Amino acid sequence: MNMVDIIYKKREGQVLTKEEIDYFVTGYTDGNIPDYQAAALLMAIYFRGMNKEETYELTRAMKYSGDTVDLSRIKGIKVDKHSTGGVGDKTTLIVGPLAAACGVPIAKMSGRGLGFTGGTVDKMEAIPGFRTTVDAEDFIHLVNDIGLSVIGQTSHIAPADKKIYALRDVTATVDNLSLITSSIMSKKLASGSDAIVLDVKCGNGAFMESMEEAVELGELMVEIGKADGKKTIAVITDMNQPLGYAVGNSLEVMEAIDTLKGKGPADITELSLVLAGYMIYAGEKASTYEEGYKMAEEALESGSALKKLAGFIEGQGGDPLVTENYLLFPQPTCHQDVIADRDGYIGEIEAKAIGLASQHSGAGRAKKEDQIDLSAGILLLKKVGDTVKTGDILATVYGRDSEKVMKGAEEAGRAFEVVEDRPEKEALIKKIIK
Amino acid sequence: MNMVDIIYKKREGQVLTKEEIDYFVTGYTDGNIPDYQAAALLMAIYFRGMNKEETYELTRAMKYSGDTVDLSRIKGIKVDKHSTGGVGDKTTLIVGPLAAACGVPIAKMSGRGLGFTGGTVDKMEAIPGFRTTVDAEDFIHLVNDIGLSVIGQTSHIAPADKKIYALRDVTATVDNLSLITSSIMSKKLASGSDAIVLDVKCGNGAFMESMEEAVELGELMVEIGKADGKKTIAVITDMNQPLGYAVGNSLEVMEAIDTLKGKGPADITELSLVLAGYMIYAGEKASTYEEGYKMAEEALESGSALKKLAGFIEGQGGDPLVTENYLLFPQPTCHQDVIADRDGYIGEIEAKAIGLASQHSGAGRAKKEDQIDLSAGILLLKKVGDTVKTGDILATVYGRDSEKVMKGAEEAGRAFEVVEDRPEKEALIKKIIK
Repeated sequence: MNMVDIIYKKREGQVLTKEEIDYFVTGYTDGNIPDYQAAALLMAIYFRGMNKEETYELTRAMKYSGDTVDLSRIKGIKVDKHSTGGVGDKTTLIVGPLAAACGVPIAKMSGRGLGFTGGTVDKMEAIPGFRTTVDAEDFIHLVNDIGLSVIGQTSHIAPADKKIYALRDVTATVDNLSLITSSIMSKKLASGSDAIVLDVKCGNGAFMESMEEAVELGELMVEIGKADGKKTIAVITDMNQPLGYAVGNSLEVMEAIDTLKGKGPADITELSLVLAGYMIYAGEKASTYEEGYKMAEEALESGSALKKLAGFIEGQGGDPLVTENYLLFPQPTCHQDVIADRDGYIGEIEAKAIGLASQHSGAGRAKKEDQIDLSAGILLLKKVGDTVKTGDILATVYGRDSEKVMKGAEEAGRAFEVVEDRPEKEALIKKIIK
Repeated sequence: MNMVDIIYKKREGQVLTKEEIDYFVTGYTDGNIPDYQAAALLMAIYFRGMNKEETYELTRAMKYSGDTVDLSRIKGIKVDKHSTGGVGDKTTLIVGPLAAACGVPIAKMSGRGLGFTGGTVDKMEAIPGFRTTVDAEDFIHLVNDIGLSVIGQTSHIAPADKKIYALRDVTATVDNLSLITSSIMSKKLASGSDAIVLDVKCGNGAFMESMEEAVELGELMVEIGKADGKKTIAVITDMNQPLGYAVGNSLEVMEAIDTLKGKGPADITELSLVLAGYMIYAGEKASTYEEGYKMAEEALESGSALKKLAGFIEGQGGDPLVTENYLLFPQPTCHQDVIADRDGYIGEIEAKAIGLASQHSGAGRAKKEDQIDLSAGILLLKKVGDTVKTGDILATVYGRDSEKVMKGAEEAGRAFEVVEDRPEKEALIKKIIK
């Protein structure tokens, strides 16, 4: 077997065999296949696509390119959740406690933010003392004791994905369905949970901008998950404006806590209950999704999920008092308001632009090595459909570097569109694929 | 400007600007753009193509990526010739002397062989003492004194092509019209001649297997040549069997000499007269192609072209006695006949297979670094349309390594197809594009 023949075959639109896909993934991970041949193959895949069998074999090869996590010592059906990435998406910090409070063991690995999207690991690090690196033994004990642990993904999980993703990023080959699916699912399948609930974002703040693409991605991921023997459910959700009001690390954790106190934004609360409902159902703690949803609602109203969050924070070395005293979070030293310059309704809030504005205020990174300001970010005061008057504050940008905060505020201002007529409301939950 | 955007733009089927093409060629030649981004762009070009303007800009950028040769101190209209590569193609050694004998100055750079095709530089090195490396000053003197010099291409000519070609070779991106055109024409345009006659091979022993592809390539190269201000003519010629009877370095030089003595194979003789005719016409030593053809014929019959060959060999340090005594060439130490195992007609001689058999007998190289056996190669005794009887010798394979010779003979045997009915004769000259 040789790589030129494999590239040629895919270039000609032929189906690659399991052996050819294995040869590529293993060789590229080992460093025996050079970047330039991998890049040529990825571009050929971009143009010719991969069928379901090829996508599954690619995912499987990437899953086995490194360690796979053994969660068999955790009792019960372990359920994982994954979001394809949005702006203001702090649901992991809400659905984790909700599902765990209902008896579903959650042993989750999360990533850091890059570009316009945030990452759960960064958000958790805004909690003083919180450790996102936990050894395998402690991770299992935490889930068995508390019911919930979320840690940073180690480099031993699906190293092929790490290498292939980095290459796709610099060769304009990110946006292909099979490549996206294999990237997400290889990590999920290597992480050892028994069931997976996928939150596929759709809209101007998501990788998948159209409903059609989002559904295609959801269906393919569900099929790949099932092919690997995992119960897999995808929820297609709206990402045409940021989720909730808070974007940025500390700000988002505070909003997650508020939500578990029953004081959260309507969209975040609803999305969290839906996702948790499916997780509870997938974890077989409820016999229907509807029952799971109700159980999640009860965990929210009773405060048991909030208590679970505090226990989870304490378990990983964080200060559980943050759930009561938000001054314990890293505090910004400056802020800048974004002011409405006309009357009307908020017609659109371009989520990607808000994500970038938050990044530029200090909350995110352009390159992996960049340092972030945990206090930085954006609090929206208006959302799509709200009325505004000239002079109203649309949003406030926070941070510790006034120049960055100013830049973020300028950009955030451009993300708002004020219109004359009240816009139609987008459904938050668009489709369920299972 | 950045490379990811350029790859993305081409991936989306958009037209690249002159500046973007320059950025890529300059950056890649300098080493500032990595192989993997170049590979992704080449694959995107493979799928999306380039229009004529892009192809011209790519060719121009590659031409100026290194030195351009100044031939202004050579009097007259300098005419270059290029073949897209075939098997048994020794025409440079014939048309050079023919055109030079008719007063057309020939200052030509040639390459080495790789894979199934031979290269003029290797063939010339079969002549004892012959130097293919000549400094710029001597090169000009040789052409002014003798009328003809052929030297090896230096690495300073179109270095972008060298780098891009090497990458295409290992990323399955060789066979794209714009990339082939820019590769050939960038070198030709940098080499300083005023006019170019292109021999575009078509058939099973050529890169362009179909007439349609060959014509498309010929038309594009002629357009690019003209756009750069050079008189450019393309001749589409048959390459469905090896040219002449000899394949391999010494063997081909001997056949070239025979041809200039009027004892050459009909196909080689005819092709050489046609190409020389167009070169004489392009060099304005004849007012029509027909007149040029006649002048070439006279130079052949009078022996003036043979004398020019001897002068050319002597000028570059070679022993001109080789034109009389073939024992001065490197001699093989073993040979193996290929025998017919049935009666009939030769229906086909797969040129690529003969080229590979010759390579494997020792005459060619698989990698640039490989050493070659100048004595090795194949002498065909039968060509398409000839009658054969069981036991007839179809070809003899020569060389100095008996194992390689045996391997070559086995492969050469498989290249012959014996059929019951005499096959139709293919036209040698298929089309002229000017």
